[in-house]
Amino acid sequence: MTFKAPVQDMLFTMRHLARLDEIARIPGFEDANLDTAQAVLEECARLNEEVVAPLNWEGDRNPSSWHDGQVLTTPGFKEAFRQYAEGGWQGLQHPVEFGGQGLPKTIGAACTEILNAANLSFALCPLLTDGAIEALLTAGSEAQKQLYIPPMIEGRWTGTMNLTEPQAGSDLSLVRTRAEPQGDGTYKLFGTKIFITYGEHDMADNIVHLVLARVPGAPEGVKGISLFIVPKFLVNPDGSLGARNDVHCVSIEHKLGIKASPTCVLQFGDHGGAVGYLVGEENRGLEYMFIMMNAARYAVGLQGIGLSERAYQKAVQYARERIQSRPVDGSVAGAAPIIHHPDVRRMLMTMRALTEGCRAMASVAAAAYDVAHHHPDPEARRHNQAFYEFMVPLVKGYSTEISHEVTSLGVQVHGGMGFIEETGAAQHYRDAKILTIYEGTTAIQANDLVGRKTARDGGATALAVARQVQATEAALAASGTEAARAVQVRLQAAREAFEQVVAYIAAQAKADPVAAYAGSVPYLMLAGNLMAGWQMARALLAAQQELAAGRDEAFMRAKIATARFYAEHILPRALAARDAIVHGADSLKAMALEAF
Amino acid sequence: MTFKAPVQDMLFTMRHLARLDEIARIPGFEDANLDTAQAVLEECARLNEEVVAPLNWEGDRNPSSWHDGQVLTTPGFKEAFRQYAEGGWQGLQHPVEFGGQGLPKTIGAACTEILNAANLSFALCPLLTDGAIEALLTAGSEAQKQLYIPPMIEGRWTGTMNLTEPQAGSDLSLVRTRAEPQGDGTYKLFGTKIFITYGEHDMADNIVHLVLARVPGAPEGVKGISLFIVPKFLVNPDGSLGARNDVHCVSIEHKLGIKASPTCVLQFGDHGGAVGYLVGEENRGLEYMFIMMNAARYAVGLQGIGLSERAYQKAVQYARERIQSRPVDGSVAGAAPIIHHPDVRRMLMTMRALTEGCRAMASVAAAAYDVAHHHPDPEARRHNQAFYEFMVPLVKGYSTEISHEVTSLGVQVHGGMGFIEETGAAQHYRDAKILTIYEGTTAIQANDLVGRKTARDGGATALAVARQVQATEAALAASGTEAARAVQVRLQAAREAFEQVVAYIAAQAKADPVAAYAGSVPYLMLAGNLMAGWQMARALLAAQQELAAGRDEAFMRAKIATARFYAEHILPRALAARDAIVHGADSLKAMALEAF
Repeated sequence: MTFKAPVQDMLFTMRHLARLDEIARIPGFEDANLDTAQAVLEECARLNEEVVAPLNWEGDRNPSSWHDGQVLTTPGFKEAFRQYAEGGWQGLQHPVEFGGQGLPKTIGAACTEILNAANLSFALCPLLTDGAIEALLTAGSEAQKQLYIPPMIEGRWTGTMNLTEPQAGSDLSLVRTRAEPQGDGTYKLFGTKIFITYGEHDMADNIVHLVLARVPGAPEGVKGISLFIVPKFLVNPDGSLGARNDVHCVSIEHKLGIKASPTCVLQFGDHGGAVGYLVGEENRGLEYMFIMMNAARYAVGLQGIGLSERAYQKAVQYARERIQSRPVDGSVAGAAPIIHHPDVRRMLMTMRALTEGCRAMASVAAAAYDVAHHHPDPEARRHNQAFYEFMVPLVKGYSTEISHEVTSLGVQVHGGMGFIEETGAAQHYRDAKILTIYEGTTAIQANDLVGRKTARDGGATALAVARQVQATEAALAASGTEAARAVQVRLQAAREAFEQVVAYIAAQAKADPVAAYAGSVPYLMLAGNLMAGWQMARALLAAQQELAAGRDEAFMRAKIATARFYAEHILPRALAARDAIVHGADSLKAMALEAF
Repeated sequence: MTFKAPVQDMLFTMRHLARLDEIARIPGFEDANLDTAQAVLEECARLNEEVVAPLNWEGDRNPSSWHDGQVLTTPGFKEAFRQYAEGGWQGLQHPVEFGGQGLPKTIGAACTEILNAANLSFALCPLLTDGAIEALLTAGSEAQKQLYIPPMIEGRWTGTMNLTEPQAGSDLSLVRTRAEPQGDGTYKLFGTKIFITYGEHDMADNIVHLVLARVPGAPEGVKGISLFIVPKFLVNPDGSLGARNDVHCVSIEHKLGIKASPTCVLQFGDHGGAVGYLVGEENRGLEYMFIMMNAARYAVGLQGIGLSERAYQKAVQYARERIQSRPVDGSVAGAAPIIHHPDVRRMLMTMRALTEGCRAMASVAAAAYDVAHHHPDPEARRHNQAFYEFMVPLVKGYSTEISHEVTSLGVQVHGGMGFIEETGAAQHYRDAKILTIYEGTTAIQANDLVGRKTARDGGATALAVARQVQATEAALAASGTEAARAVQVRLQAAREAFEQVVAYIAAQAKADPVAAYAGSVPYLMLAGNLMAGWQMARALLAAQQELAAGRDEAFMRAKIATARFYAEHILPRALAARDAIVHGADSLKAMALEAF
């Protein structure tokens, strides 16, 4: 088996950190208890381990190909997608009324991680479809929802996000695609979109493109962008497919990674105009798209975690098998499996601690989302929403940057074999590189963190989170074990560094924005590090209790060791980041632009 | 132009940090003054910018190919290698008596960096040939030197290192290739070698394979390994080529990067035995090979620096051209080139500071090598040799790990375009990944640093270096400028962290080797960081003086800004590494092996 879903760790995290039991007390989520979670995760694991994961390397070797406007996906993908759809996985988190399962995000997130660990390229198709469903749920008319959502949930159709144009990447104010009203309520679209994931493929009967474009006379900039449905095949009122629409894939990209996922250039309107249907109101497209993007950003964080998990498992397997050199402590007489060598263990522990820390952080964020969207108490909704929004750039930014580190270590553990493509470790390293770029680069996430999530409320949300961290520090101190004390010291130092940085960022954001934003990515990394380390500290406390109760000794001991490793090896990075942020702005500004 | 050699920075470094003027006072190096260096570098730059660099992307797209035992290199490589050889570049650092130029390593290192920045895959062929020349100079008989070295210096033949076998990677004690004496002074070799760089190609008339093998009855382990010359074509006493030898390339690898460099599986003796000639004495092969490897390790560090420079230049160019979004400080009214955005500048400055820091560190190490090998005073030789040996694992380990970070940032600056292969940024990222693996992984370098370079003398060499750093701190304090004071504070903190770690490593190496080696790579990164940061601090002092003298104002101001950036953004990492090393061993050991 090439991949084993980390179901036990996910259930531990849901139980002790995300507190799924509390979510299951929210009306509508009564069935979403730990038994349900276990059953869902085990079934999800089975499909992905047996069907989806084995196609991952095949997708890299035999990627999507373009021929005359058609895109052929990797052999096996179409059938795997059919099984995925038939299992009801596309609808896991979507409303029951449109054919979904209505499960909380806390459970859905774990399933998304498993799918992405199994096969990142494959998983992108459902991920984008989820985004399209979210956008239509939020802004679509009732008729649009009824017409487009059920077939997407059934996996008969898939969805895409069409934002980027050659001149408009991160800066959507530069979007030029035109939408001309036809007088019958429809529009005709003209323009070119690039980097459209699964913009064309052979895995479904229809593709629902959601497209940003400008109507005539729209204001300049981001306030003049509208959102349109442009189906690949027009849809008759009864849901049957009509004529082919004027949207065509003119090429796909040759990429560093995620090669099985077709990245399309889509041409709209080269043959008279692509028929489009306005979603919501004119000029509010960016607002709707942000809903979709926020869900997608969180999901990209999960992609990073899944990829990290996959790389970790592969590295552990190799480190157990590869025999090379005698251990420094003489614990083995001759050449031993390399897992006996201290630096190999350091690398594996680093990979493991980072992966578990990011997973715990993402799971806790998902739980906050569930409370924010479903809890009867408005105050609970409000502060969980604030917490979730604070966490989204961290889940996206930190988990994906970390996936670079983890997949790089994964190659390194393999030594020379890691550099040979057939080994498969290099694929994870290549695939990971897109994660810090798409759905908003790390810098874009960090801008969001600095601007909307920190400076706007003067650091109040951030400092409220710091108070929660402090409560965990107190619990660690009270626990009194050696491990807990060791973690407490590091957690406190990192939290204090975080508070200093929050104060600095909040103060500078208006006074000296270049200084504040110069520290934006280091701040994101510091905050993500602290959030993940905090959750690992909570995990340590929970594991100590479970151990005392005599449950799952080996697992709990490993969790304690991993949490302590995180605190002692990873959390100290917060101090370096703090110094760079608080002292580093002048040296950034000192360099003349022409001197680069 | 795709690449511009950083000649000005190299000359600054040679003048002010490596003190080429002092090397030019050593007998034999009288001509190796700054004027010579400038002339050599400019000529080197010309060849590499015009001929070698343009082939880099072509090599990635159209890599070496294997057909029926033959390897065809990328179109253009053969002709470029001819020009390289005809320019005398292969002999730059080699003795005049064999046709070389006899220049100091301080100048040679800069040329090696330029060549590798231009085209890493291409540069591997001369790099391995250099290693073969070094090994023969050290351990070959007079007749072997006369027969094999001049054609290699002329570029008519090339050289290889044959160490690795499928079961023997880092652990050469597992080498199994057999060498059977034939009674006439020759041997016949039988075995399989893997990962042989340029083990077969079409760029030269002959290939001089240097091969590790065991003679009958040799002791087990590394003390039973001998070194042999196995030429692709046997060589007649007059130097003309004779019969084809029984060494054949049976396949080449499909790799993550350096695709134009053929990585060969070589089969020795499948057709009766490959004729080999013993180099030096039986069973001393590893000792000779280490000479070659130490030269090669230093050179791999230069590869990391060259690749970082190349990635930096590419990123700067893109950041000046790509227009996206309004700067946060409103310094530009509309969308601006992304170099105006603080995080893009942070990324570019990080790339630049790391690259310049590693270059300065490598240059100073090269100067120590020159003094150690050529100075008339034995005391000067001794302590420069100790310094050089301390620096080799840092130049190799730190500069290559840093090249991952720099090339990754290079992709990141390009955003989505960075992920598209045709952009070229991804090639550098892929190429860089081999550098932390071959010629000894970072962990192997770190073992060397901990064991032979630190613990063996109880940390004396390391602490002597710390005293030199302290002298620079005093000079910074005396200088009194704001930048110098800012650097002094960070340098002192990093140096103190280094001293704590050296004391810890020296104490633990015998008492608790797992603890010492668990911190080995973080120690290497800390030490490399400090050495590079120290040289940048010295550079700042020199630049302040040049500025006061009215020389090269723009360059000197940029150097000061870069040095300060290094101190404020990079040096603080030393504190995080210190904490992980000094406090981190228990949590590494706590994890049961079976729990991974």
